[in-house]
Amino acid sequence: MTGHKVTMLGTGLIGLFYTMTLHGQRGRDRVHVVYSRSEERGRSFAAEWDIPVHTTDLEEAVAHPETDVVVVGVPNHLHEEAVALAARHGKAVLCTKPLARNAEEAKRILDTVEGAGVFAGYLEDLVYTPKTLKAVAAVRAGQIGQVTWARSRETHPGPHSAWFWDAEQAGGGAIVDLGCHCVEIIRSFVGKENRPLEVVCWADTLVHPIEAEDNAIALIRFESGAMGQFEVSWTFRGGMDLRDEVAGTEGTIWTNHFLRTGFEMFSSGEGGGYVAEKAETASGWMFPVGDEVSELGYVDMFRDMFDALDEGRQPMETFYDGYVVNAIMDACYGSAKRRAWEPVELADWRGTGAAPITRSQRTHDGKLVIKEEKMPDGRLRLILKDERTGEFTDVVSSV
Amino acid sequence: MTGHKVTMLGTGLIGLFYTMTLHGQRGRDRVHVVYSRSEERGRSFAAEWDIPVHTTDLEEAVAHPETDVVVVGVPNHLHEEAVALAARHGKAVLCTKPLARNAEEAKRILDTVEGAGVFAGYLEDLVYTPKTLKAVAAVRAGQIGQVTWARSRETHPGPHSAWFWDAEQAGGGAIVDLGCHCVEIIRSFVGKENRPLEVVCWADTLVHPIEAEDNAIALIRFESGAMGQFEVSWTFRGGMDLRDEVAGTEGTIWTNHFLRTGFEMFSSGEGGGYVAEKAETASGWMFPVGDEVSELGYVDMFRDMFDALDEGRQPMETFYDGYVVNAIMDACYGSAKRRAWEPVELADWRGTGAAPITRSQRTHDGKLVIKEEKMPDGRLRLILKDERTGEFTDVVSSV
Amino acid sequence: MTGHKVTMLGTGLIGLFYTMTLHGQRGRDRVHVVYSRSEERGRSFAAEWDIPVHTTDLEEAVAHPETDVVVVGVPNHLHEEAVALAARHGKAVLCTKPLARNAEEAKRILDTVEGAGVFAGYLEDLVYTPKTLKAVAAVRAGQIGQVTWARSRETHPGPHSAWFWDAEQAGGGAIVDLGCHCVEIIRSFVGKENRPLEVVCWADTLVHPIEAEDNAIALIRFESGAMGQFEVSWTFRGGMDLRDEVAGTEGTIWTNHFLRTGFEMFSSGEGGGYVAEKAETASGWMFPVGDEVSELGYVDMFRDMFDALDEGRQPMETFYDGYVVNAIMDACYGSAKRRAWEPVELADWRGTGAAPITRSQRTHDGKLVIKEEKMPDGRLRLILKDERTGEFTDVVSSV
Amino acid sequence: MTGHKVTMLGTGLIGLFYTMTLHGQRGRDRVHVVYSRSEERGRSFAAEWDIPVHTTDLEEAVAHPETDVVVVGVPNHLHEEAVALAARHGKAVLCTKPLARNAEEAKRILDTVEGAGVFAGYLEDLVYTPKTLKAVAAVRAGQIGQVTWARSRETHPGPHSAWFWDAEQAGGGAIVDLGCHCVEIIRSFVGKENRPLEVVCWADTLVHPIEAEDNAIALIRFESGAMGQFEVSWTFRGGMDLRDEVAGTEGTIWTNHFLRTGFEMFSSGEGGGYVAEKAETASGWMFPVGDEVSELGYVDMFRDMFDALDEGRQPMETFYDGYVVNAIMDACYGSAKRRAWEPVELADWRGTGAAPITRSQRTHDGKLVIKEEKMPDGRLRLILKDERTGEFTDVVSSV
Repeated sequence: MTGHKVTMLGTGLIGLFYTMTLHGQRGRDRVHVVYSRSEERGRSFAAEWDIPVHTTDLEEAVAHPETDVVVVGVPNHLHEEAVALAARHGKAVLCTKPLARNAEEAKRILDTVEGAGVFAGYLEDLVYTPKTLKAVAAVRAGQIGQVTWARSRETHPGPHSAWFWDAEQAGGGAIVDLGCHCVEIIRSFVGKENRPLEVVCWADTLVHPIEAEDNAIALIRFESGAMGQFEVSWTFRGGMDLRDEVAGTEGTIWTNHFLRTGFEMFSSGEGGGYVAEKAETASGWMFPVGDEVSELGYVDMFRDMFDALDEGRQPMETFYDGYVVNAIMDACYGSAKRRAWEPVELADWRGTGAAPITRSQRTHDGKLVIKEEKMPDGRLRLILKDERTGEFTDVVSSV
Repeated sequence: MTGHKVTMLGTGLIGLFYTMTLHGQRGRDRVHVVYSRSEERGRSFAAEWDIPVHTTDLEEAVAHPETDVVVVGVPNHLHEEAVALAARHGKAVLCTKPLARNAEEAKRILDTVEGAGVFAGYLEDLVYTPKTLKAVAAVRAGQIGQVTWARSRETHPGPHSAWFWDAEQAGGGAIVDLGCHCVEIIRSFVGKENRPLEVVCWADTLVHPIEAEDNAIALIRFESGAMGQFEVSWTFRGGMDLRDEVAGTEGTIWTNHFLRTGFEMFSSGEGGGYVAEKAETASGWMFPVGDEVSELGYVDMFRDMFDALDEGRQPMETFYDGYVVNAIMDACYGSAKRRAWEPVELADWRGTGAAPITRSQRTHDGKLVIKEEKMPDGRLRLILKDERTGEFTDVVSSV
Repeated sequence: MTGHKVTMLGTGLIGLFYTMTLHGQRGRDRVHVVYSRSEERGRSFAAEWDIPVHTTDLEEAVAHPETDVVVVGVPNHLHEEAVALAARHGKAVLCTKPLARNAEEAKRILDTVEGAGVFAGYLEDLVYTPKTLKAVAAVRAGQIGQVTWARSRETHPGPHSAWFWDAEQAGGGAIVDLGCHCVEIIRSFVGKENRPLEVVCWADTLVHPIEAEDNAIALIRFESGAMGQFEVSWTFRGGMDLRDEVAGTEGTIWTNHFLRTGFEMFSSGEGGGYVAEKAETASGWMFPVGDEVSELGYVDMFRDMFDALDEGRQPMETFYDGYVVNAIMDACYGSAKRRAWEPVELADWRGTGAAPITRSQRTHDGKLVIKEEKMPDGRLRLILKDERTGEFTDVVSSV
Repeated sequence: MTGHKVTMLGTGLIGLFYTMTLHGQRGRDRVHVVYSRSEERGRSFAAEWDIPVHTTDLEEAVAHPETDVVVVGVPNHLHEEAVALAARHGKAVLCTKPLARNAEEAKRILDTVEGAGVFAGYLEDLVYTPKTLKAVAAVRAGQIGQVTWARSRETHPGPHSAWFWDAEQAGGGAIVDLGCHCVEIIRSFVGKENRPLEVVCWADTLVHPIEAEDNAIALIRFESGAMGQFEVSWTFRGGMDLRDEVAGTEGTIWTNHFLRTGFEMFSSGEGGGYVAEKAETASGWMFPVGDEVSELGYVDMFRDMFDALDEGRQPMETFYDGYVVNAIMDACYGSAKRRAWEPVELADWRGTGAAPITRSQRTHDGKLVIKEEKMPDGRLRLILKDERTGEFTDVVSSV
């Protein structure tokens, strides 16, 4: 029943959301030390969130004797150093997404924590949204049969902080920023045991005057035959579009995490000063989200992380998952550049394998049943194929 | 940073949801003692939720020396006794909705806690849904101007426990069970300072073979001129319909808490064993809710209650609110019986009063402006009334 | 296979929509003569829609020898005169909604056409929307069991023409303008054979500086026990809200005719000059309707009218229906004024009567079954009432 | 004002929908002759739809002296012969989608009608849905700026007739059956003057025991840089999913043509015999479409075709469009087979060309503006890039 004291690295939007989540609940776990590159930002952040210690010294923050967990919320190019420090000081480390800028860097980070034997959790929040957790459970329970497609979309008008736009610091553009979420959502639906084999990806810079891609679409083929598809964009107009879809042999799942969640508001704009978050406008029809940190998965993510730590088990999202995500994104960049299908290179594959999707081989009167439909009068209409002649016919059957 | 130890009275659906909420988070506050009329249910409930103490003795549960908060989750006709016990033992008391079976009983309960000087919170969860909290904040900020209508609906196929169906134990039917939520949602939108003046209500028993009403609609007229409207039913087919709507002079808010929240699933029913909760079917199109206890307000409700207790302030929902709700429901029953508008009797009214909705009195060329519309070419089309002649005309204005 | 030549009375929004419908299809029926009070408007309307004859003389328009159908699209206070002229000249007459300003006037209009023996159709378009037609067919087929509630809403920011705002010319405010649609939609769902018995109505002028009501809600109790409910407003913000809901013992129907029909558009407003119709804004999220005249029922309405005329049968909506609608609206005004339930006065009632909604009387082990729920394991959970003791219990049954 | 007499070739689902559309309105154009391979089906079809002549002789049907328009609704492998006959007899010909099984066949069909000088229209209905027509108009008017992406999806559980499943007769699987719609919808949004350059496509047979693909996704890159994306499936569960999305530099459009159009019905299945069309179930939540032939574009498609014929102009959809669609689908098959980007071969390209999407080059203080956001206090937050140093920074500007 005791909680954890956390060192929070970073006071940007990510650090803010994380701290808001931890301190916004009546939780046992709290931020005790905050690190910021800027003395001024660190001080005001600590004051706002009632955090006892703030510092501009990264190692001092990590090594602080009263904290047992380090949360890495700094820009991508600083993850490796921050994780290494946490490992060196024997602390549990939770790292924001993406784990690294590429699979090579991710593998080194993975090796570091495994070598040091510290607890490590991958802070992939969107896999933990309440809808995604329940949808994944439904898929695991067989409710939609075997998964054939999983699609994930994340689009918005572009990130808030300058470093995201710099391909060097970030490791890429919209793929690295948004695609990492999509890839892990897709893996959760098709099954993490299901090896990603190859990728075809289109990426382009259509609107913004930058080097990195502002739009991309990728297809990921898995061992079972299932297809993953992601769509990411930094040029979407209308807010933030976070939607996932799963198709299975026995069913379908659609989730919408942001723009259409059952909360609709129209304002003439002449009433008052409220501004809906992430909306592009403060008048007209707006679509707020109820409890943003809960809907985006932060609450359930930290619950799993701290529970796993307390229970001595792995969290649902590990650094190994982060490494696989980076490997798939590397293949996406390779495919976009070489304009061809690109194999997913996974030197370290730990999955147990997935069986191929089953194709029906049912027969009727010695012919293969292609499709059946129930008619209003209760009879079945069958489309049949005679495998010897190759001929297709339809019959109505009373059974 | 220390939490509270709770005595939970009741192990029905309400006690279950409350305990699931408190123990499902990494919270500081936990159930320490549980009371059930049934030794067997108490034991299994305590085992399932890791609760140290269980008992079938109500006073023993309330008086347990290690708990400082009593949560009343027993049937309606037992609220008064339970609250009185808590007050007598000087404990903070949180009581489920409705506070009582009628205003007279509610007033006695209110007087008891105020007399004893104990902290008292009214567990009206639906006012605390994340969407409702944000919507009420938008209204308070003036985003939709002055509220003219607020409508709240709660309908489903009927409650799960036998006692709800017994008008004697429950105090009524769908109005007392569901209308209490609606009334408080409406009050939150029109403003709690806005006195409810009178009510007209239709209630009927259309489908179920019971004495209590299984359907009702009521209109509640407030001091400002705003109209509240609730629709409740125990005969709805298709799940649970929880929707609120607010109309203002400058905007509109629509919230949907259950059936259309951005989570859609189709299942042929041939895949596996998952059953969506509160759905009427386990195949076809289903509409699950992400995190039910969060979406229904339980998480934010307990946060406010315990924070208020820690901070020495009143919670957002007090026993006084529960009393007002009962008074309005009493007027609904009176109106349904006498088939007429019925005044809301509030011997103890603590509201500060609300100004009437402002009717526009703008003029143009000496005539009253009834309406203006912006035309595609940017000009305004005005409908005007000449107050001397009573004549209505329309003009197009370049400003 | 030959069509009809139509005299169109009126060139306002109604005349425009009617003509747009008739001339917009590859139809056989066309407007041949148009009447307008204004020579200038008549001329330009005739030119725009390729209509051979235009006139400012009402009788000349009606009597024109080449037309066989007169469509009445003039303001409400002119309906009686226009219909009388058509009857006198032995022409088929189609009259826009509402038929009259009150039931007395409606009865005279009805008597006039029945006395003259001319074909008469009531142009109640919203009963003819494709969704409503299909929904009513589903109800008639028993798909949702017995109807217990039918609710219809029409709200928008107020009408476009000056005369609507003048209670004298219009006969009332939002009730007469919008409620007439709602009443007939409700009658279509509960069944036209189902006598409307009484009404309770609230009406108020909350926002606009007029005498007529700008907001109203009414409950209409029918012979079967079913309840109709309408909500009308001239102060809604956000466009036009046209929604209907039907609750039955075996199902539910929800239709949305305007704001949420599967067409969503966001515009920054910096792109170009398109303006969505009836939207309050030309930027932000907008919700256009695909084919407005089709979605609002005009196409199917005229099809039924002309087909009925050709086939020598009554149309689906007759002047008698218009009279019943006026009688119900009269009761609404009476109730709003006297603040009490008001009987619906129908001197001429032609309905065949409706049986009361059936309440279940099934028993289990000699007790009344109040409710049953299927549990995940396939067993049934029953809530039972012992009629002798009045006691409620629940049991789990294996059947 | 006179209409056309039509020869209808085919009495399958397509012929039925076409005839239902033409005869369901009060239209001037009617089917006069119907051809069916089966004497019995032809006779009953003619009787049901009041068609004077039926025959099993294709040329006799085409050549019938009283008809001036031939509608080709036979399976894909018979289009070429049917069109050739119509051309030979000098008749206007309207051909269902796809025009042919591949571009080579399509080109021959195109050459045939252009050589004969007969009017030819391509019956691509989904481009004519009321929503698509209005959405395309909004795009043309600049409302969403420059189009960057257009996505079209058509998925359902598989076609009703046996011949669709035979790749020889159909020319392919889900791509040829459904992708042809998607391709033309995409072209309508990105602009028909915008040359399709190349394609990458994944196609697989995941569920059904057939040779043809039952699932496919393709990306189509256009001259302007815009990306088209289609998703087709014969294995979708839950009805028919018809959705389009367009992203532009200044806005977004989403349309839903079938499953979520504002019509929702729940039925316990115990009420009555109504069965919703194309739904997979007759109980639970169902989503009917109001007027199917109108919502799917048939009404507006035939209006454009016959109006174009009367006015001596080209229809919106021509055989040339059909040829381009086939060429793009050929490239899809080529890409899926060779697993690489595949150029779109268009020997006959008639487009005028499209300018590339404009990338912003606005500067602020000598730096490139990457993004700007309006903050709640009215100030602007700018993300800037110093082109000399490559450094990204953010500033808050008061303008």
